[in-house]
Amino acid sequence: MSRMSRTSFLSFTQLALTRLREQSPLVQCITNAVVTNITANALLAVGAAPAMVDVPDEAGEFAPVASALLVNLGTPHLAQREAMVEAATAASTAGTPWVLDPVAIGTLSVRTPLAHRLLTARPSVIRGNASEIIALSGAGAGGRGVDSTDGVDAAAEPAASLARSADTVVAVSGPEDLITDGRQRVRVGNGHPLLTRMTGGGCALGAVMAAFASLDDDRLATTVAATTVYGIAADLAAERASGPGSFAVAFLDALAEVDAQVVAERAVIS
Amino acid sequence: MSRMSRTSFLSFTQLALTRLREQSPLVQCITNAVVTNITANALLAVGAAPAMVDVPDEAGEFAPVASALLVNLGTPHLAQREAMVEAATAASTAGTPWVLDPVAIGTLSVRTPLAHRLLTARPSVIRGNASEIIALSGAGAGGRGVDSTDGVDAAAEPAASLARSADTVVAVSGPEDLITDGRQRVRVGNGHPLLTRMTGGGCALGAVMAAFASLDDDRLATTVAATTVYGIAADLAAERASGPGSFAVAFLDALAEVDAQVVAERAVIS
Amino acid sequence: MSRMSRTSFLSFTQLALTRLREQSPLVQCITNAVVTNITANALLAVGAAPAMVDVPDEAGEFAPVASALLVNLGTPHLAQREAMVEAATAASTAGTPWVLDPVAIGTLSVRTPLAHRLLTARPSVIRGNASEIIALSGAGAGGRGVDSTDGVDAAAEPAASLARSADTVVAVSGPEDLITDGRQRVRVGNGHPLLTRMTGGGCALGAVMAAFASLDDDRLATTVAATTVYGIAADLAAERASGPGSFAVAFLDALAEVDAQVVAERAVIS
Repeated sequence: MSRMSRTSFLSFTQLALTRLREQSPLVQCITNAVVTNITANALLAVGAAPAMVDVPDEAGEFAPVASALLVNLGTPHLAQREAMVEAATAASTAGTPWVLDPVAIGTLSVRTPLAHRLLTARPSVIRGNASEIIALSGAGAGGRGVDSTDGVDAAAEPAASLARSADTVVAVSGPEDLITDGRQRVRVGNGHPLLTRMTGGGCALGAVMAAFASLDDDRLATTVAATTVYGIAADLAAERASGPGSFAVAFLDALAEVDAQVVAERAVIS
Repeated sequence: MSRMSRTSFLSFTQLALTRLREQSPLVQCITNAVVTNITANALLAVGAAPAMVDVPDEAGEFAPVASALLVNLGTPHLAQREAMVEAATAASTAGTPWVLDPVAIGTLSVRTPLAHRLLTARPSVIRGNASEIIALSGAGAGGRGVDSTDGVDAAAEPAASLARSADTVVAVSGPEDLITDGRQRVRVGNGHPLLTRMTGGGCALGAVMAAFASLDDDRLATTVAATTVYGIAADLAAERASGPGSFAVAFLDALAEVDAQVVAERAVIS
Repeated sequence: MSRMSRTSFLSFTQLALTRLREQSPLVQCITNAVVTNITANALLAVGAAPAMVDVPDEAGEFAPVASALLVNLGTPHLAQREAMVEAATAASTAGTPWVLDPVAIGTLSVRTPLAHRLLTARPSVIRGNASEIIALSGAGAGGRGVDSTDGVDAAAEPAASLARSADTVVAVSGPEDLITDGRQRVRVGNGHPLLTRMTGGGCALGAVMAAFASLDDDRLATTVAATTVYGIAADLAAERASGPGSFAVAFLDALAEVDAQVVAERAVIS
């Protein structure tokens, strides 16, 4: 596969966003109790349709009919863990693209082995902060709860290694986001620190990545597109907000507002 | 029972809203993880008091002291399913009015039989989109996750049939909402498409219907009243919003603001 | 221990707030499904870091590394109850300060014995409305769901008695908040009725109390500081809000905005 240029990523992002609004992909989310609401609202705002089907027996039967699946390990209660394995396996078998967000793995004894087990169901995209990606790659022990104690640069090599070994795309969030398929590394400079002052700022991005992953088989390009659109919405919201509360509101408005024109004006992809 | 006229529904709605603010009914909610927050906030905003008592053993002991109960099948984990059956049965026995919202039933294998089982505890009101109502009535197979794939008109006959067979009131949400007791059909034209871009736009209405159901035994009239007040708040919010994020905020403000005067000016009941 | 004066509480509050922004304490929250989102957002806004680790096995291993812990009984499902006992015990052993919020205890048969069991793990602070504190002290039967049916004054003696018997600090929320260690009683006059029209208005305060409790061993002073900062943010938000929806947004903005200067201008401590 030849490498995409910066211009190609930009064009792809514009097309993918337009297609997302036309298709309104149905995104099944098995995610943590803290962010279910903002995750569903972010999907609705950007133009997708959320379906929080996370009950055992239903999770597996829904994954093949969903456009995409998000599995987020934030509050992995027993029944949800069963639903995660069931849904990821069914998605993998059915060809439904799915995103793994290994929240706060490293030393915590329930979610860490669960993340490794879910890897065997071949996620299409893995998204996390630097500490989570380093932990999942086997190169470190994880961060401080949901916060990263490592920088994005420290995760670049572990991310590429993980992408190659798991045959997937890995996205590392940080001041500048890094996305890699193990060969090419793309950096997205959009986004704003206020995203880290809003619960779900990272988790909802995983759901948006899933929505975009349903649109094209080039998962490096769809993940760059999702990250760019999401970051641009954060940039717009930060210009209008007077604190973390009004930022969250403006962010949802902006996710609905971003279009191909705004992407062309604001995307920072390198 | 004689049929109410449009003017009667309007007057009833005004009186019921005033009474709701005086009595502040205590509404027990057993609802899905995605919308608990907006549901509780909508109840508080309109003037009711939420109580999310959804734990087995407590759910059944609370239902008789609650003013009303909402049972919403959005994320029906095992313990919540037990709590739902327990609470609905206790509510039915104690005479506490209760609302059933059969979210996304049809083909999903946990919630679909659960919805039919809950029917035997005789809900006072059933609320859903067209596909959900058609599925519950036995006339179809359900929609696309939480989204309806059927129009409100297609659900008119199934809704009336369900209302008669279950001796209840059925409310079908859509661009225009339809409420029927199996004899009379009332349509409420208030409401706005932005409600579908906000998670819980439909689910929270179920809770508001429960609050109103505690105020009078005429459940057709209380359900029309709840739908009208809720729809008017959405109309007001849409005029002030610049996207789905600011809509949700303005909607809660508007729920607190709507009064008998605003109802008189804006209600669209036919 | 000598008693602090009003001026001392004020100075302490200013210092504690500054320290909180420097240290960004990591607050583990095991809380109810309705308020997880607003609780996490309130912590982020004020300058702390939330970690909703509430799964059995992980909850106990996380408590010793957390800066503080909140245990809130709002929706106490079985696995969460195990996680609560595990985390409270581990926190107590490790010296991690922890806050108990006995939501709606009194007659409900799951949470009431649970609250008494958790008392044996020696909470650093207990926070509740008047009815909840009276019920926990053994002097009454509880309120109406999450609402208090008793006034703050009626809870003054039970609060002091509970503080002495459990060797803790007790905070009673109401129009004016009362905080006592069983010897000294402090009243904080900041806060606004709109806090009671927003879900989590009380619950999120428990998390903020936990964040402040990590900053100093004088738990009477840290609890007064948390209550004062939180109440001032509500005062600011009420001045800018046009209803409960915009209040919640403005409240998060204000929590991020309050600083030592604003505390000096607005604190009402007596």
